[in-house]
Amino acid sequence: MQPPAALSRYREPLELHLRALLDTQQPPALRRMLCYHLGWEEADGSTADHTGKRLRPTLCLLACEALGGEASHALPIAAALELVHNFSLVHDDVQDRDRKRHGRDTVWALWGESQAINAGDALLAISHRAIASAAEAGLPTAAVVLATGLLAERTLEMVEGQVMDLGFESRTDVSEDEYLAMVSRKTGALFDASLALGAIAAGASSPSIESLGRCGRALGIAFQARDDALGVWGDESRTGKAAGADIRRRKKSLPVILTFARADAGHRGQLARIYSQEDVGERDVDWVLGVMDSLDAQAYCSDLAGRYRDSALRELASAGLSATGGRELRETADFLLARDY
Amino acid sequence: MQPPAALSRYREPLELHLRALLDTQQPPALRRMLCYHLGWEEADGSTADHTGKRLRPTLCLLACEALGGEASHALPIAAALELVHNFSLVHDDVQDRDRKRHGRDTVWALWGESQAINAGDALLAISHRAIASAAEAGLPTAAVVLATGLLAERTLEMVEGQVMDLGFESRTDVSEDEYLAMVSRKTGALFDASLALGAIAAGASSPSIESLGRCGRALGIAFQARDDALGVWGDESRTGKAAGADIRRRKKSLPVILTFARADAGHRGQLARIYSQEDVGERDVDWVLGVMDSLDAQAYCSDLAGRYRDSALRELASAGLSATGGRELRETADFLLARDY
Repeated sequence: MQPPAALSRYREPLELHLRALLDTQQPPALRRMLCYHLGWEEADGSTADHTGKRLRPTLCLLACEALGGEASHALPIAAALELVHNFSLVHDDVQDRDRKRHGRDTVWALWGESQAINAGDALLAISHRAIASAAEAGLPTAAVVLATGLLAERTLEMVEGQVMDLGFESRTDVSEDEYLAMVSRKTGALFDASLALGAIAAGASSPSIESLGRCGRALGIAFQARDDALGVWGDESRTGKAAGADIRRRKKSLPVILTFARADAGHRGQLARIYSQEDVGERDVDWVLGVMDSLDAQAYCSDLAGRYRDSALRELASAGLSATGGRELRETADFLLARDY
Repeated sequence: MQPPAALSRYREPLELHLRALLDTQQPPALRRMLCYHLGWEEADGSTADHTGKRLRPTLCLLACEALGGEASHALPIAAALELVHNFSLVHDDVQDRDRKRHGRDTVWALWGESQAINAGDALLAISHRAIASAAEAGLPTAAVVLATGLLAERTLEMVEGQVMDLGFESRTDVSEDEYLAMVSRKTGALFDASLALGAIAAGASSPSIESLGRCGRALGIAFQARDDALGVWGDESRTGKAAGADIRRRKKSLPVILTFARADAGHRGQLARIYSQEDVGERDVDWVLGVMDSLDAQAYCSDLAGRYRDSALRELASAGLSATGGRELRETADFLLARDY
């Protein structure tokens, strides 16, 4: 499935805005980590092009435009969302001890944990500087204050979600409700902020802002459920991760939570044994994949993602968007759920 | 020397404000770390009283009042400053592998590095939520936006300073200028923000805001020079740190930078050897203390602190403060330089 054209409409101005925020950063040891992580440079400082989908800022700009706002006023806010997202990736990689992300070395793997903590901290600070600068880009100060408070609140929720997720690592009895409460924070909160901040930048009413926020949160949960499914059943040539990758690294993602919850007592004991090992071998991965198949875990993940996508689309329908804007956001939602990478 | 009365004037409303920001935090695993680090609870959740001097927020409130502002409007901003300070402490302890701070276990020593990274991240996010809430406390939205941008900029500078400081660890040729550039960011930036944000909350003019910012920065550098001296020559019964503590942990603080820069070639070679060891023993600590004495390093640190204090006081004199407010800030500056803990 091809990404909808709307997803790339703001790529150039957004990338220019992000570069302007980071390009002159000092000292060089910090700038290097930021430009590497954002995908513009290789580790040796040579030019690269590994930029991601820039999904969150694009959702923000699409929402702003769909509500009749001026996307250029929202650019600093959109950039702030991308920086918050990247702050969380850099720190997550330290916390999860992941040495690779999308096939590239992670920041801590290259420059050590301490400097990676600094890189993440800097991204979060720069995001707040960016959002304050939206006043100079033409946004009323009351809207900037509203946006600042909302972004801070959602960033805090992401951290809460990460605290919960790390707490799951040592448990084998995480319920689906607990998983959803975690994911609503860890992933849903920033999708919520992405659409809600777009509405704030457009000068929308409180009900519209809240409705788009709920839409974004449901979309974020659906997105994460899809991501979790790809981490187990994805095609390596598309995702850059081997099939079963999230089983091998013992990640308590949705398929695993479901499998623990639905397996019979015998299988659950064996699962607990596998998930308590330091290293999970190929035979164990295959055995877990077999249990997941017997429990229809893949269909269950996809049903759950579909339910949240439907809920997101219902919110979208009542948010007072332009016809074109509404269609573009629906197409984007469909793509996020159907994507194979 | 007793701390001046002004330093404790806002202790109660400030502590109440900070508690309101953190007390209902979820999940419990996050709340526990925050309330422990802020000094209100022991690690087991029982009540404690280990709160610090709350220096930065107090400077902010004193500056606001000295410029005729209403301190209650500045409380959320003052609280934000204390939270940014604590964010940096929690992450610094992870980065420096320090297991104790003022005699208490550090957050990472108790709950692990990953959760400590989350605790620091949460404090930074909550600080931005707090500053946005200053609009509800009665501050005009334009002032809130200005304060948000300035705090973000200064927070970023702190991170830059930390990147530089970590870069010093592997070097033996750090110059005094490099040290000052680092400390101006790592410590000076948040003192700058403390006084400047107080001025913003008072609705002061740009020149007053800038002058108080420069005053704060000079004061911060003087404060750090004093802190560095106490880390080498402090009285353990007052500082909670053994004399020579910063030599034992091979910290590249001001006395060490000076000693490397001023020692003759023979001494410098021996110093480099000592600072390249994993563990620095008592005999080495004594030898380094002896070299420092022969170079008058203590007097040099105290002169440097005095010069920055004088520069801070000159800025203060031109900032248009009330007579009482000016006197209180001068007394506070004097105390920060004369303190023995």
